[in-house]
Amino acid sequence: MSIPGNILESDLGGLRERVNQRLAEYIAPTAFTSSADCPLRLRESMAHSLLAGGKRLRPLMVLLTAEACGGSVEAALPAACAIEMVHTYSLIHDDLPAMDNDDFRRGRPTNHKVFGDAMAILAGDALLTLAFEVIAEHTQPATVAAACCADLASASGWCGMVAGQVADIEAEESAVQRAEKSDADTELKHLEAIHRRKTGRLLTSAVTLGARVAQADPKLIASLSQFGKCVGLAFQIADDLLDVTGDAAKIGKGVSKDAARGKMTYPGLLGTDASRQKADALIDEACQLLQPLGPKGDKLAALARFVTQRDH
Amino acid sequence: MSIPGNILESDLGGLRERVNQRLAEYIAPTAFTSSADCPLRLRESMAHSLLAGGKRLRPLMVLLTAEACGGSVEAALPAACAIEMVHTYSLIHDDLPAMDNDDFRRGRPTNHKVFGDAMAILAGDALLTLAFEVIAEHTQPATVAAACCADLASASGWCGMVAGQVADIEAEESAVQRAEKSDADTELKHLEAIHRRKTGRLLTSAVTLGARVAQADPKLIASLSQFGKCVGLAFQIADDLLDVTGDAAKIGKGVSKDAARGKMTYPGLLGTDASRQKADALIDEACQLLQPLGPKGDKLAALARFVTQRDH
Repeated sequence: MSIPGNILESDLGGLRERVNQRLAEYIAPTAFTSSADCPLRLRESMAHSLLAGGKRLRPLMVLLTAEACGGSVEAALPAACAIEMVHTYSLIHDDLPAMDNDDFRRGRPTNHKVFGDAMAILAGDALLTLAFEVIAEHTQPATVAAACCADLASASGWCGMVAGQVADIEAEESAVQRAEKSDADTELKHLEAIHRRKTGRLLTSAVTLGARVAQADPKLIASLSQFGKCVGLAFQIADDLLDVTGDAAKIGKGVSKDAARGKMTYPGLLGTDASRQKADALIDEACQLLQPLGPKGDKLAALARFVTQRDH
Repeated sequence: MSIPGNILESDLGGLRERVNQRLAEYIAPTAFTSSADCPLRLRESMAHSLLAGGKRLRPLMVLLTAEACGGSVEAALPAACAIEMVHTYSLIHDDLPAMDNDDFRRGRPTNHKVFGDAMAILAGDALLTLAFEVIAEHTQPATVAAACCADLASASGWCGMVAGQVADIEAEESAVQRAEKSDADTELKHLEAIHRRKTGRLLTSAVTLGARVAQADPKLIASLSQFGKCVGLAFQIADDLLDVTGDAAKIGKGVSKDAARGKMTYPGLLGTDASRQKADALIDEACQLLQPLGPKGDKLAALARFVTQRDH
């Protein structure tokens, strides 16, 4: 690892700022010729969740992967913003009373608490749709745009992120019966199957989108996709750990909420220490996969370590 | 008009069957390499609404426009199915208790009545996402796929269909205040502004998708887009008329529901006869726009007349 933490931090800050700026531009009243047709409350509802800050992990993964593959940040920005729109829509819908019924997110009241359930559903729908518009309109050449749309849809759709959310809901519903008859190993496999879809596929897609925009060759895309899988799982373990050990003010949402709901978590199944070790091992495995990139992969590796060691 | 009604009917029946078959294939467990990851209940929920029959008006518009522009039905089928997925997702979300709270649709219980609100939200999300995956994966060449993704997203997103749904909700909320201070002419403009976005833009998109798949030249696409706008508005007027004069068993949902809710409608503002005349005039205007296509445009013209004269 040749990037000291403070240099990475300042790099990431600059990139995060560019993402935030571009996101604001994409939902500005002047973003498209037809944008004047957007009702004010809808735009406010979209902005409330999209421009609420956040780590911007997925866009950063897109941008650093594109750079690592010899592409430019500028060319990768539309895809980076699109994946953040998909992530944000999923948070808005997951927080709804019909789903997880959460009141706070990123330190602010959730979308439906401010704008009502109907508007929150529609703002989520609008952000999901806009993600594809942004890629299709602004990613060049068209072959890359089409491949990115297909990738993002596959990762976030009925066999990806949405499937993960369904599996998560079903797991909560069946938690008691399952706990009575299954061992920790079976539970762990079940938990991994949920996370692979619920968060893993979108994080993996961040990496492949970046590689596609940089027009990396298919072999490199495949090995980066494996990197994304490892980081995605490590990230989820870190997130579970944070729910146990974290500080509510820093996370911006309630702590120990998962445990209170009886949700399966890594610390719950493996214990805190073994969970931490597993996350570290996954990151080591992920960084091995970046070796073909040489020093160009250093920032991406540093980002992977950074996101699983965060306490924020 | 050189296509007798019964020949058109048999043509449309055949095309509708191809659309239904392809839609079923796209949500089959074997549709994509990752399809095994789709939870059974999610797929059932998607199928409940997507494979519930219906007129398939939007896909038929895609297919007949493609044919009229010299393209093939086969090449246009992915875009035709995608637009039906977008239409279906919008119905699922609009029917939710947080929105219109409808219990029946296409003669069956609405999605959330069968699968619950959470699953209905997720099935809608999944269908919207799948629409873009299907176009991006299956439409050729990539330039056309990217243009179709952009078109469909623009028509259905924050400045299109979603904006129309928001405006519709806001209009219901402010109906009493507005009625007190505005005249019929202002109300009519307001109603058209809602429908232009809520149903008009997606119907227009059906036409432009078909033209794009057939690689029609930009001038023809522009005049077909105008055709789509006229048909979209005429269709909405016909839909309002059906709500007043229709037969619940044929429509598959409650009759006079709009009036009972105090919703603005064309018959409510203009009267039944003037509404019928307006719809007919719009279809005449639309058919004029097809003249550059010569006899190749006859079926498309017949479809436009057919959908506004339906009592089903």
